[in-house]
Amino acid sequence: MNIESVDLFYLSIPQVRDIGDGSQDALLVRVRAGNHTGWGECEASPLVSVANYVCPMSHSACKPVRDIVLGRRIESPQDIVNLGHAVRAAGLDIAQTNHTLSGIEIACWDLLGKARQEPVYRLIGGGRSYPKTPYASQLFGDDPQQTLMKAKSASQAGYRAVKFGWGPFGRGTAEQDRDHIAAAREGVGQDVKLMIDAGTVWGDDVDKAARRLDTLEQFHALWLEEPFVGEAFGAYRALADHCRHVRLAGGEGADNAYAAQHLIEHGGIGYVQIDTGRIGGIAPARRVAEYARDKGVVFVNHTFTTHLALSASLAPFVDMEAFDLCEYPFEASSLARELYHDELALREGQVRLPEVPGLGVEPNMKALKRYLVDVRIEAKGRVLYATPKPD
Amino acid sequence: MNIESVDLFYLSIPQVRDIGDGSQDALLVRVRAGNHTGWGECEASPLVSVANYVCPMSHSACKPVRDIVLGRRIESPQDIVNLGHAVRAAGLDIAQTNHTLSGIEIACWDLLGKARQEPVYRLIGGGRSYPKTPYASQLFGDDPQQTLMKAKSASQAGYRAVKFGWGPFGRGTAEQDRDHIAAAREGVGQDVKLMIDAGTVWGDDVDKAARRLDTLEQFHALWLEEPFVGEAFGAYRALADHCRHVRLAGGEGADNAYAAQHLIEHGGIGYVQIDTGRIGGIAPARRVAEYARDKGVVFVNHTFTTHLALSASLAPFVDMEAFDLCEYPFEASSLARELYHDELALREGQVRLPEVPGLGVEPNMKALKRYLVDVRIEAKGRVLYATPKPD
Repeated sequence: MNIESVDLFYLSIPQVRDIGDGSQDALLVRVRAGNHTGWGECEASPLVSVANYVCPMSHSACKPVRDIVLGRRIESPQDIVNLGHAVRAAGLDIAQTNHTLSGIEIACWDLLGKARQEPVYRLIGGGRSYPKTPYASQLFGDDPQQTLMKAKSASQAGYRAVKFGWGPFGRGTAEQDRDHIAAAREGVGQDVKLMIDAGTVWGDDVDKAARRLDTLEQFHALWLEEPFVGEAFGAYRALADHCRHVRLAGGEGADNAYAAQHLIEHGGIGYVQIDTGRIGGIAPARRVAEYARDKGVVFVNHTFTTHLALSASLAPFVDMEAFDLCEYPFEASSLARELYHDELALREGQVRLPEVPGLGVEPNMKALKRYLVDVRIEAKGRVLYATPKPD
Repeated sequence: MNIESVDLFYLSIPQVRDIGDGSQDALLVRVRAGNHTGWGECEASPLVSVANYVCPMSHSACKPVRDIVLGRRIESPQDIVNLGHAVRAAGLDIAQTNHTLSGIEIACWDLLGKARQEPVYRLIGGGRSYPKTPYASQLFGDDPQQTLMKAKSASQAGYRAVKFGWGPFGRGTAEQDRDHIAAAREGVGQDVKLMIDAGTVWGDDVDKAARRLDTLEQFHALWLEEPFVGEAFGAYRALADHCRHVRLAGGEGADNAYAAQHLIEHGGIGYVQIDTGRIGGIAPARRVAEYARDKGVVFVNHTFTTHLALSASLAPFVDMEAFDLCEYPFEASSLARELYHDELALREGQVRLPEVPGLGVEPNMKALKRYLVDVRIEAKGRVLYATPKPD
């Protein structure tokens, strides 16, 4: 079957706020081929990826994603891998290319799974599906008291692992950060895994990060996530050398498999966190998962948004039993919650992939229409993009 | 002075062709502050960067470039460096951010230079300006005979260094590539430096690249450029270990300073080629030039387009006498040639930066209007972008 149509739907809540919540908008992708429909999602700015999908060609290595995708044959997993290679080569000089590709690539897997009547994880990994232990991913409170309350509520909801990040963390003194971490540990209790996400707040300043290490060790943080921007391998390595028990985590920003592999090889991280909606889709994420396994590093998904993004982010490593943690959207927006049917709801406190063809997560078309943003892009006298009809 | 306006002009020749010529379109940036006007250019897809400039915020680390730039104070070089940091932090999750920033950052340097009555190179480096030896950068011919003719004509035009790239190279057999390289060497003669650009054609396949090394050594190629995609550090390192005299070159795709530094540290390249229109502007390029100097690697600009892009790409290293090569647009499109006034025309076979305030290259407004593309982007019920009036 050949790809007949690709539709990009930009969805957004009415008032996007200036907070670290990536579920406030979404770029949903629908791919049709044969009699099948696949769905995927791109992380990050929907409008930029829409423009990247339709932009006029600038030269032979600077082409719109559309030119490569439409009409392409998708009969096997290798066809999807090759599609990724072709899109990257044609869009070599456009930094956004892998972000835009991601949702399309994911939709192709969903589509192929449906055509073959197989779950995607079996197409990509071939093995069995292991349940994962979810960790609740949430923002720090504005003050330690709020962090304490949030930690208690996550713990009471039954989570065995909780992560706090962003908000005020790292922006004030090391003592203020200590108060937040202490509150988080107090709130979740001693038996729950606690992770801290610095959200790249220290740039590449190793000293600033190192000043928080004693606190992280004292309160038994499992990992310190993104102390630095994802490219600062040297800073990661230097900080890793200071760690006793706490490990560094990173990789969510990786927009290609190499970037994640380098963070492992040259940055010394202990956990690699991959967002399939950004790295170019499921196949590059699988490549990183296999690389991590070979290097003794733990692979974890990065998912702050929807159950479709979650299913796509689990598929690359669900067959790897040793990688038992899973980031689980805990504070997602109404958009992210209403767009699907809670397909990956926790069962006995665990996350399991649906044992159905494809990714097993279908959008609620009513919600899609409710949050749909009207977009129109014209250039060179032509309408390059207009929000498609959902039906 | 504070930034009062930023205008993005998408320019294009009428018929963009599917060839490796990056000068077929351009994204020109005009920044106004105080009574001054600065100009810059972004490399790569104009429409994607325009969308990135105006896109609605998705969350706190996914903001349009516009939100950070407008109203920002620009009084000193450090203000421009800080502007770059702020844009990158606010656009952390949008891969295109540094591409979009580049032209704006360059225009800010031009503007500050004009306000201070100083050439930009003196603001960023402080030293004197050394002339550079241009190398003619052109595409391989469709067959060796055509490559021979092109090589002869570059040599007859007085170039002491000539680079061939893209076209059929690397896509056929090693013998076919040998014929092209032999033709290039024959055409330029024995005394002209010859460089070969593989345009990432071998992905990360070290064997394929290694099969061309004997030919490159035999015909005394100075460097082999981009045998692999820019992220494949391991492949670069492995190939570098096979080289006798020829050195590897790369870095044009670097869209942040770290990427270029890693290619030096982990890839073992001997020449690092930086496009200020892509790496985030002049300040990050300067950082790479200083890093290269410390590591004994040669810094060269990457410029395939206009004299404005050339001036901006020379500013970061023009005070470093040892880095004496300069990529010089040789086959640029009518757009790239007509847009400026040949400000960096060769004098006695050398390239010199204009000794005037700013970057010393001002667009020809008639040409700008002639090539201007009409663009309109609407989203969420608002017009986010409409091609501005040039005057």
